Amino acid sequence: MEYSEILRTRRSIRSYEERPVPVELLREMIRESTLAPSSGNNQPWRLVVITNGEMMRRISDESKKNLIARLEADPGDYIVRYESALRNREYNVFYNAPALVIVAGSRDYRNLLVDCALFASYFMNAAAARGLGTCWVNLGSDVRDPGLRAELGLSDDDRIVAPIIIGYPRAIPAAPIRREPDIIRIIE
Amino acid sequence: MEYSEILRTRRSIRSYEERPVPVELLREMIRESTLAPSSGNNQPWRLVVITNGEMMRRISDESKKNLIARLEADPGDYIVRYESALRNREYNVFYNAPALVIVAGSRDYRNLLVDCALFASYFMNAAAARGLGTCWVNLGSDVRDPGLRAELGLSDDDRIVAPIIIGYPRAIPAAPIRREPDIIRIIE
Repeated sequence: MEYSEILRTRRSIRSYEERPVPVELLREMIRESTLAPSSGNNQPWRLVVITNGEMMRRISDESKKNLIARLEADPGDYIVRYESALRNREYNVFYNAPALVIVAGSRDYRNLLVDCALFASYFMNAAAARGLGTCWVNLGSDVRDPGLRAELGLSDDDRIVAPIIIGYPRAIPAAPIRREPDIIRIIE
Repeated sequence: MEYSEILRTRRSIRSYEERPVPVELLREMIRESTLAPSSGNNQPWRLVVITNGEMMRRISDESKKNLIARLEADPGDYIVRYESALRNREYNVFYNAPALVIVAGSRDYRNLLVDCALFASYFMNAAAARGLGTCWVNLGSDVRDPGLRAELGLSDDDRIVAPIIIGYPRAIPAAPIRREPDIIRIIE
């Protein structure tokens, strides 16, 4: 696919067709995403691949529960803007997506956030190049329950950086408006 | 350009042709990079564009000085692996690149690192799509001198996330080897 087409079609997608995404395709996209640059070529990302809807629902419920607890401990937390969604039992933070890929890694690694974000960027492009949509769902990242973490294969040391949902988009919405970039200074 | 071609040619480039990069082209690439996703579409990135070699040298010297001070305060700091380069007065962390774009933003913003990394990923692709090379140079980010920060237009609140050098590559090296991705678990 032309890169300009990826720029146009890579949007955050929250509504998907029923069509499943084959695990083999997710694996191929993950492999391609390892081409992302990383600090010192350390490639600190670890992945969990989920196509099981029940498991996605459990992760969503666990994360919502923890975010609500966080909000109750600190009513000024920025997630207050999501409070009504989080308190809605029907609300699944992963919407009706047929697949979820979790990008995680060692929480003590100094460059974890940046390197996993670069990986995620490649992964979202890999999806767009195949006609798939994605959305990075921060609300799905607060997984603390030891039993559930163990089922996901996450050690205590692992931090979930990017839970990314994937599927065939029902529609590709227009890009939300971008501001003119804030170029503070040009030094020639 | 085909996206597969960008995947193949987007490499970290540390040796550039003498050829300058027009500021207007950098501006166009920055504008394109605002298509990157950001948390809540907040677009927290702020940019400094530099094509002045003397200024790049000053930023390099300032950052090297601060990194050496950090190393002297904590000899176990990971940057010890760069010590001999940092102590070499001739060494310019930005090599001979004709341009530098600094991606920065408010240090208190919770999603700054991730959002700026996504912007940087788009910017590095924007460069590759135009036959330009880039390298994210973490060693160039430790700028503390108030006078120099003021010249760059950075407030106390701004954190430099990504100093990215840009230019026409002398050569495009092969990709360093990627490990097979660590897929911890597949849950179907």
